[in-house]
Amino acid sequence: MIENMPSFSRLVSEFNRLPGIGYKTATRLAYHILKSPTEIVENMAQSLVDVKEYVGQCTQCFSYTEGSVLCRVCSDDHRDKHVLCVVEDPWDIITMENSGIFRGQYHVLHGVISPLDGISPKDLKIDELMSRVELSRQSEATEIKELIFALDADLEGDTTILYLAKLLKDKGVSVTRIAHGVPVGGDIDYVDHRTLGRALENRVNI
Amino acid sequence: MIENMPSFSRLVSEFNRLPGIGYKTATRLAYHILKSPTEIVENMAQSLVDVKEYVGQCTQCFSYTEGSVLCRVCSDDHRDKHVLCVVEDPWDIITMENSGIFRGQYHVLHGVISPLDGISPKDLKIDELMSRVELSRQSEATEIKELIFALDADLEGDTTILYLAKLLKDKGVSVTRIAHGVPVGGDIDYVDHRTLGRALENRVNI
Repeated sequence: MIENMPSFSRLVSEFNRLPGIGYKTATRLAYHILKSPTEIVENMAQSLVDVKEYVGQCTQCFSYTEGSVLCRVCSDDHRDKHVLCVVEDPWDIITMENSGIFRGQYHVLHGVISPLDGISPKDLKIDELMSRVELSRQSEATEIKELIFALDADLEGDTTILYLAKLLKDKGVSVTRIAHGVPVGGDIDYVDHRTLGRALENRVNI
Repeated sequence: MIENMPSFSRLVSEFNRLPGIGYKTATRLAYHILKSPTEIVENMAQSLVDVKEYVGQCTQCFSYTEGSVLCRVCSDDHRDKHVLCVVEDPWDIITMENSGIFRGQYHVLHGVISPLDGISPKDLKIDELMSRVELSRQSEATEIKELIFALDADLEGDTTILYLAKLLKDKGVSVTRIAHGVPVGGDIDYVDHRTLGRALENRVNI
């Protein structure tokens, strides 16, 4: 039945492109669209176009923002301007904000160094990070004193941190990364050996 | 972050409307859209609009069709015109066709009688079914001799079948329904008591 309806099967493949949506789910979604009132479907199509038109990147931290040049965090005067948390993508900011612990500002790299995927330092917001650090020195009130890396503890994350730590050496900025170890409430029996190795290596005095 | 981006949060709610897509998945999908190239997003929006514009209902069986008045099954001369399978919605036709056993034609009711949901016989394609049966009598070649009901074995499905069986009485059409019972390959231990009851009731001679 689907083969004979080109616009239906095109919609199925469009849904199928989305992460976590397989062919069968895509077909069910497309079928739901077919049953929905035209007005609702047109609203959905408009939302897709609108989000690309109205949402842009914050000119300071490169997270997403709508209707203003700076994002909510960057334009908030109550945030600590001396501490910068460096993340891979804007999604990570939502996770960090939900924890409610971090009160500084962010910088989004939009990726990590990954030679296998052809992603080199120049594809990331690294130059922008360096000039942001440099620029912050102009006044004591805005000076960035610490950079916290909240990147994944994999090969690409580690490479990116090493690369940036080298660039930031002798710049007078303290460079740290979030701790990796056994999750709180987690059972040691179920922790993989690399995580346990990292937990042992980074043990803290009590 | 989301609260400050109205078009982003509208897209999240649009995705959230879709069946099986919760708030968290909707946010991830909307975020994926934000990262995708504008051209791909515009194609997706266009597909949504197109499917509503180009896909219509078959004038004979009320399944979906595109670019022609009759659907693929109705316009196929090799299908048995004497047997009609009555289903709840077009999706059921895909399931029936995938089994590869049925060679007759279909009739889509677009719902089942459900007083609790305010769905009465006049909301369904029942008048259309009756006139289709009547019309088929004009020639021996097209006469509908059997109606097979492939509806769910729940209260609404049973009500619909009883209602239609009464209407079709004395019309000279044989009325049947697909068998409900223990699934092939299924374990009797895991079958619910209503299914088992139905399997016992409808036992067949060997």
